[in-house]
Amino acid sequence: MPLTERKPMRMDADGWDLGKVRYYIWKIAAGPDSGTPTGAVLKDALSSSGKLLRPRLLLYFGGMGPEVQTRRERLYLLAAMTELTHLASLIHDDIVDEAPSRRGQPSIQSKYGKDAAVYAGDFLISRVFRWGAQEGLLNAVERLAQTVEDMCAGEIGQAACRYRSDVTEEAYYANIRGKTAALFRTACGLGAAETGCPDWVVKKAEEFGEALGLLFQLRDDLLDFNGSGQTAGKETHKDFRDGIYTMPVLKALRDPWGWNALLPLMRSSREWGLTEDELAIMEQAVVRAGGVEAAWEEVRHYHRLSGEFLNELEDFGSVDGLRKVWCQLGLR
Amino acid sequence: MPLTERKPMRMDADGWDLGKVRYYIWKIAAGPDSGTPTGAVLKDALSSSGKLLRPRLLLYFGGMGPEVQTRRERLYLLAAMTELTHLASLIHDDIVDEAPSRRGQPSIQSKYGKDAAVYAGDFLISRVFRWGAQEGLLNAVERLAQTVEDMCAGEIGQAACRYRSDVTEEAYYANIRGKTAALFRTACGLGAAETGCPDWVVKKAEEFGEALGLLFQLRDDLLDFNGSGQTAGKETHKDFRDGIYTMPVLKALRDPWGWNALLPLMRSSREWGLTEDELAIMEQAVVRAGGVEAAWEEVRHYHRLSGEFLNELEDFGSVDGLRKVWCQLGLR
Repeated sequence: MPLTERKPMRMDADGWDLGKVRYYIWKIAAGPDSGTPTGAVLKDALSSSGKLLRPRLLLYFGGMGPEVQTRRERLYLLAAMTELTHLASLIHDDIVDEAPSRRGQPSIQSKYGKDAAVYAGDFLISRVFRWGAQEGLLNAVERLAQTVEDMCAGEIGQAACRYRSDVTEEAYYANIRGKTAALFRTACGLGAAETGCPDWVVKKAEEFGEALGLLFQLRDDLLDFNGSGQTAGKETHKDFRDGIYTMPVLKALRDPWGWNALLPLMRSSREWGLTEDELAIMEQAVVRAGGVEAAWEEVRHYHRLSGEFLNELEDFGSVDGLRKVWCQLGLR
Repeated sequence: MPLTERKPMRMDADGWDLGKVRYYIWKIAAGPDSGTPTGAVLKDALSSSGKLLRPRLLLYFGGMGPEVQTRRERLYLLAAMTELTHLASLIHDDIVDEAPSRRGQPSIQSKYGKDAAVYAGDFLISRVFRWGAQEGLLNAVERLAQTVEDMCAGEIGQAACRYRSDVTEEAYYANIRGKTAALFRTACGLGAAETGCPDWVVKKAEEFGEALGLLFQLRDDLLDFNGSGQTAGKETHKDFRDGIYTMPVLKALRDPWGWNALLPLMRSSREWGLTEDELAIMEQAVVRAGGVEAAWEEVRHYHRLSGEFLNELEDFGSVDGLRKVWCQLGLR
C-alpha cells in the first residue's frame, strides 16, 4: 500500500489543508502557555472551532499568485494570525454583549469572568503581533493592526449611534465596514499580496472581501431581526433593544408610516425597555414599511457586486473556492 | 536677547523634554482620528496626563548609552509607545474594576460605556504596534507585545487566585511581576538597548526595572490596604472585598492567630460581602498579625535591591535621574 493511501493528506478546502491552519492557531496561541491559568482560558477560547471563513478567503486568494508553491507555509501562518485576530475580537464582543454563549459553548466571560475575558482578548491580539514580528512579517503586523483599529472604530462608531433615530445608512455602513468588512478585506488582500499577485488583483481581492463582509453583516443583522424560530436559542431583536438600528429598521424609518410607528417604540425602548409584545409590533411595523425586503435588496446588491468582482478575477486565475464561499453567503 | 532666553527648551526631567513624549503620545494615538467618535474617546483617555514614570525610566536608561545623541528622537517615540501601552492597560483595568474614575476624571467606561472602553483599549494597543511596525521598530513591537502578554498573564493569574486562602507569596509575586513589573522592566531595557548600552547594562536595567515595578505594586497594594484618610476619595480594601489577597494579608495568614481571625472573614466575604465594621476588624487582624509591617519589609527589600542595581550601574554612567525616581518610590 503506498504511503499516500495510509496517511491521506487532508485537502479539505479546494487543495488547502485547514488542519494546518488549526495547527498554527494552536501553536501560536495556546501551546506555549499550557498548564498556566492563561493557557486554560486560551485552550477554551480556541476549542470551539468556527468555519474558518477568513482563513479560507486568505488561502484561496493566496492560491492565485505565482509564488504560491514557495509560500504555502507562510499562507497557513497568515491564515492562523487572521483567524486569531477574529477570535480575540469575539472574546471582547462577548464582554460588550454580555453574551452567555458562543458557538454553542459558554463564552469566556461567562465561564471565567470579565477579567479573564478582557485580558485573554488582549493577550491573544498581542500574541498575534509578537508572532508576526518574530517571523519578520512586518507587512502583516501593520495590516492586521490597522484592521483591528478599523474594527474598533466601527464598534465605537456603532456605540456612538445607539438609540439615535437620526442614524443614516451611511453611518451604518461606515460602522459595519469597520467592525466586520475590514477583516474580510484584509484576509483577501494579505493572501493575494503574499504570493505576488499583481496590484490590480490585490486591489480587487480587497474590494471583493469588503463587499463580502458587508453582505455577511447585513445578513447577520437580518437574522437577528427576523430569525425567530430559525436559529434555535438565539435571542432576536437584541440589536433593537440595545438601541442599535440596523438596515431593516433604517429602511423602515425612511417610510413616513414606518417612522411614526417606530419612533414611540424607540423612545420607550431607551427609557424602560420593550416587552415581547412590543417587539412583535416593532417587527411587524418594519416588515409592513418594507424595511426587511429593502434590507434583503442591499444583501442582493453586495452579492451581485462581489459576484462581478469574482468574474473579473477569473481572468487572472481560478476562483472555484471563492465562488463556493460566495454562493454560501448569498443564500437567504 | 539671545534666542535661548526667548524660547527656552523644555528640559523638564534631567535633560529630557517630557513635552516631546506628550507630543508623540498625541501624534501616535489621537491626532489621526480627531473629529471621529473614536478620536473623542481617545482624546479623553489621553487628556489626564500621568507622571510619565515609565517614559522617564526609558529616557534615563537611553541617556546612558553611547549612541544617545543620534537616537534621541527614537527614544521619545519609544517612550510614547511605552506610555500608550500603559494607558491602554489602564482603560481595560477600569472595565474589570468597574472604576468610576481615573486620575481625578471619569473613567472611559463610566463616561462612554463599556463598549467604548473595550474597543478604545484595543484600538490604542493596535495603534502602538502598527506605529512600531511602520517605523521599523521590530524589536520594540516584539518586546512590547511580549510585555502585554506578561501583563495579561499576571492579571489572569490573579483572577485565578481570587478568594483562595491558599494563595502563596510566590503566586502573588508571579502575578504582580506580570501585571506591573513587566512594563517597568521593558521600559528600562528598551531605553538601554536602543542607545547601544552593553549587554550587562541592559540586563541590569531590566533587573532594576523589575525590582522597581515590584516595589511599586507592593506599595500600591499597601495603600489600598491602609491608605484610609490618606488618599482622598479612594475606596480602601477593594482588593480584599474582591478576593484579591495582597502581601499584608498573605503575611498575616502565615501567623496562626492571623489565619484563624481572617479565614471566617474571607469566607463570608465571598458569600455575602463584608460590612465596613467587618473590614475594620479584618484590617486590625492583619496589623496585629504583623502583616502590614512584614509587607513594608518586602518594600524595603526591593528598595534596597534596586538601590544596589543603581550603585552597580553607576560604574557605567550617571544615574542621577534614576536615583530621583528610586527615592520617590521608596518613601513610605
